[in-house]
Amino acid sequence: MRLVAVDWGTSSLRGALLDTDGKVLEEQSHPRGILSVAPGGFAEVFASLFTEWMRPAGTRCLISGMAGSQQGWVEAPYCECPAGLDEVAGKIIDIEPGSQHRIAIVPGLCVEHDGVPDVMRGEEVQILGAMALTGLRDGLFVLPGTHNKWARTQFGRVTSFRTFMTGEFYALLSQHSILARTLDASAPLDEAAFLTGVAQADNGHGLLHNAFGTRTLALFSRMSKAELASYLSGLLIGEELRTQSLQAASEVVLIGAPALTRRYALALGAAGTTTRTLGAEATWAGLHALATIRTP
Amino acid sequence: MRLVAVDWGTSSLRGALLDTDGKVLEEQSHPRGILSVAPGGFAEVFASLFTEWMRPAGTRCLISGMAGSQQGWVEAPYCECPAGLDEVAGKIIDIEPGSQHRIAIVPGLCVEHDGVPDVMRGEEVQILGAMALTGLRDGLFVLPGTHNKWARTQFGRVTSFRTFMTGEFYALLSQHSILARTLDASAPLDEAAFLTGVAQADNGHGLLHNAFGTRTLALFSRMSKAELASYLSGLLIGEELRTQSLQAASEVVLIGAPALTRRYALALGAAGTTTRTLGAEATWAGLHALATIRTP
Repeated sequence: MRLVAVDWGTSSLRGALLDTDGKVLEEQSHPRGILSVAPGGFAEVFASLFTEWMRPAGTRCLISGMAGSQQGWVEAPYCECPAGLDEVAGKIIDIEPGSQHRIAIVPGLCVEHDGVPDVMRGEEVQILGAMALTGLRDGLFVLPGTHNKWARTQFGRVTSFRTFMTGEFYALLSQHSILARTLDASAPLDEAAFLTGVAQADNGHGLLHNAFGTRTLALFSRMSKAELASYLSGLLIGEELRTQSLQAASEVVLIGAPALTRRYALALGAAGTTTRTLGAEATWAGLHALATIRTP
Repeated sequence: MRLVAVDWGTSSLRGALLDTDGKVLEEQSHPRGILSVAPGGFAEVFASLFTEWMRPAGTRCLISGMAGSQQGWVEAPYCECPAGLDEVAGKIIDIEPGSQHRIAIVPGLCVEHDGVPDVMRGEEVQILGAMALTGLRDGLFVLPGTHNKWARTQFGRVTSFRTFMTGEFYALLSQHSILARTLDASAPLDEAAFLTGVAQADNGHGLLHNAFGTRTLALFSRMSKAELASYLSGLLIGEELRTQSLQAASEVVLIGAPALTRRYALALGAAGTTTRTLGAEATWAGLHALATIRTP
């Protein structure tokens, strides 16, 4: 049975048509994240993009990501950690039950730390896929993005995770703060400046202080605009790494776009941690695994 | 001799007319920060605001703040720490030397930590004034604002300081980030929520993670929009306090606007640190002290 696998996020949507073995037959992506869809308009957007793939009748579709949020197509309540394939599959929500389309939505995960909840939607599928692809069932998985996730797994289940707003902070600081005037966010990564920032983040004085160094290094002409963009990125990723207990992980699995995973691989490498990297294939492998386990 | 004391900042300008003893005779403030002044337009703006006060001929004026920066009226190069009244007075720059107006600009301070410079412009005058007003020559001075300053003094000189972008981070997060959707930045301070944020900041997981809690607490309806604004403020100020060695200071002197100094007094009080608070009077006392020491 073929599977239409869809990762429907906040700002974009990606889809893949998979064969019975999970092999990708076709892929497509569109700037049609849930923020671009009017309330009640999800079925129409879906039909406009996937009608071809949903033939023949009886083809199934699994959707992960923000399409399952309160602002999405149909809300799929969070699955509590620890959660693996069985727990997540058990909370998948059918859209229009009984319809021949058989479209369903994967829930996100939630966890609570000292009274403060944390959530993910979409990343749980990438982690399940990464475990399937690598065979690693006990590991540390890092998913860089606007809101990064650091997740631990044991015996194939996500036991705990934390979100870091690193990507959003970088966008805010590099575009809207006083720092924006003296850095060039469009410049390619400068590895030396980036690693200088990573090291600086560990000086004990915190991000609120260290970020201002991006301003004064410009004021005293110590770094170029291009270097300062990489330095700031290093400060932020270094701040994220600072709070992790990396000793417990012999290897970190990075899942995401190469432009971001490369930075984490550099920063983690500088800390002596080995990494391996996966991209969109983790999403498709995760949705395939969920569809397989759910087949009667 | 009367003194026209001016604090000319980035976004606003405040002035006071002082008598020979430093007593404030009149005050004025205007939204005429240096960003609102066209290049070459400083003398005209000054004349439009202070011509009356500058009579009789021979009246002196001292200006502190960003008017002495590269983008200001006349650049007054930074004075290096350690610096007290003598060092700062020695680097005051006359505008139009020989003119009867006798207008001069106070330099800012700079310091360097492990290869990264730090700077202040205007706060040094507030600190000098606070030392004059309180008699405290060895102390810890905190000046909340867009870019907060924490300064140490010994024997009446500023020995070191660090800047924290706490105010700017709060503005960015509460207005431009995903958190803006679920908090009410216009709500009055909620002390309990604020102190919960201060305590949370010390959990070892860092600002990039803790900030996301402001999102999830809203998502799970654990706090109201008004409480979340105070919680976020507490997270940021708590993060700033986390990196300080408060043990070394028996008392912290806060200088700034009451809406901000109140928050620091609360957070420091929760950490067991005593505070005392000064406002604009510190600026006028500092400019008066500098003018007095500079009189031939």
